[in-house]
Amino acid sequence: MTQEGTQGADDLTGFSINQMTVRQLTLPELVKGLTEQGVPGVGLWREPVATYGLTATARLVRDAGLTVTSLCRGGFFTAERPAERAAALDDNRAAIDEAATLGTDTLVLVSGGLPPGSRDLFGARERIAEALAELAPYAAERGVRLAIEPLHPMYAADRCVVSTLAQALDLAGRFPAERVGVVIDTYHLWWDDQLAAGIARAGAEGRIHCFQLADWTTPLPEGVLNGRGQLGDGAVDFRWFDRAVRAAGYTGPVEVELFNEGLWAREGIGVLAETVARYRAHTR
Amino acid sequence: MTQEGTQGADDLTGFSINQMTVRQLTLPELVKGLTEQGVPGVGLWREPVATYGLTATARLVRDAGLTVTSLCRGGFFTAERPAERAAALDDNRAAIDEAATLGTDTLVLVSGGLPPGSRDLFGARERIAEALAELAPYAAERGVRLAIEPLHPMYAADRCVVSTLAQALDLAGRFPAERVGVVIDTYHLWWDDQLAAGIARAGAEGRIHCFQLADWTTPLPEGVLNGRGQLGDGAVDFRWFDRAVRAAGYTGPVEVELFNEGLWAREGIGVLAETVARYRAHTR
Repeated sequence: MTQEGTQGADDLTGFSINQMTVRQLTLPELVKGLTEQGVPGVGLWREPVATYGLTATARLVRDAGLTVTSLCRGGFFTAERPAERAAALDDNRAAIDEAATLGTDTLVLVSGGLPPGSRDLFGARERIAEALAELAPYAAERGVRLAIEPLHPMYAADRCVVSTLAQALDLAGRFPAERVGVVIDTYHLWWDDQLAAGIARAGAEGRIHCFQLADWTTPLPEGVLNGRGQLGDGAVDFRWFDRAVRAAGYTGPVEVELFNEGLWAREGIGVLAETVARYRAHTR
Repeated sequence: MTQEGTQGADDLTGFSINQMTVRQLTLPELVKGLTEQGVPGVGLWREPVATYGLTATARLVRDAGLTVTSLCRGGFFTAERPAERAAALDDNRAAIDEAATLGTDTLVLVSGGLPPGSRDLFGARERIAEALAELAPYAAERGVRLAIEPLHPMYAADRCVVSTLAQALDLAGRFPAERVGVVIDTYHLWWDDQLAAGIARAGAEGRIHCFQLADWTTPLPEGVLNGRGQLGDGAVDFRWFDRAVRAAGYTGPVEVELFNEGLWAREGIGVLAETVARYRAHTR
């Protein structure tokens, strides 16, 4: 799948870059850039895929020989009103269908925060479990696994009440491992003193469905959404993570997913090349 | 200690407001405001105390009949260089002396983040334990308890590598409970699905040395330092916290500590009155 003659491309086996990292690129620009750099995988997002067209995207990446390592994202399961819940489930079924069409077996789930005005974390978490129970069989029939992403606790109120790997595993544990697993994203999890045990457990249970890299840099920007650092710029020890997931038995792709205003303001192909270089420098 | 005739003041038994909540007030203004509102306790910070004078502050609060519920803050134990470590320990001994002079038994510790350029969370945590071992006997001789404050994980890189209550308890557990305990601050801990068990454990071990309230509001401001919400404005269920710490056997003070640019821009006595009203409305 990698380009002939790309120096050092062999060490990029299993490597993937999520399209949000270079959202300034169109899908054809992204696919061309990845193949030229020898990157064999890509993580996709529903919105830009819809803009380019679902079947057109599926054809584009397949023809380029790229592996779609994940689709972001389903989730947002915590609404209380029946109509909102029904709409969320419908949207997740659509996301599962899109994942299947794109040829990826992994749908990443951002589970949802507290409904407006609510302080009921316990209720919100139970509604996530109920939604998973409803969606997991639908996903399984289409060969898609639901990957619960524990998000950093700073997102607990407004994006995701699942905040640690152990918590995500407890939730996933209600379902078969081939149907519901977890995302290990370094940005969200690096601070946790229970992380080594959590990664070992996730591997032993066969629930590491996705492994994503981003660095933790400070100061955090207002709103704390778009400050994920380029690899090597921050506090995350990527070699530690890489060793830990491999020791836990993980052999799947490694995907870099950055949301960063500074990177988005730059020329995208240069950001791709930098990301490949940083991956080589900081994980190998 | 409360003013005669202050309506409803009885339900403020054990209530305290940290001076950072109204940092726009001088110490005499603060003390006058608290006594007029019937608030029996105050949490102090070293810098404004030093500005007013240590012995003058001690006299001021004692004469007003206020209980000093905590002194913020010691800590910052994670430096690697010997000279920096020695300076940090000296500064913490000074903080312990100041706590004793002010008549509080509780020094709050912000343990410190990663040294610049470091990614070694494990080493940083061990240096905290070493510092506690050196300081705990010194503090105990002066009747001061060291209260480890787990800070929200969004501060792990630059302020505190102790991020959960369980982690703080594991660290405190190396020392006698009357010497080293923990701070339970709603702002830092509210998101944790293991919190109920942690609070029960902290109470059973006799290690709840300080209980602080602030609400979680979004969006977070740039740098995420000064966005702690007024009680009732955010996601924290204060009644749940109050019940949990009391069920765990805690009978100590309850201190409101807000860092909020919006509150600091307002007239301070009005903020004090609002804080008392919010405390009554959201915890009782």
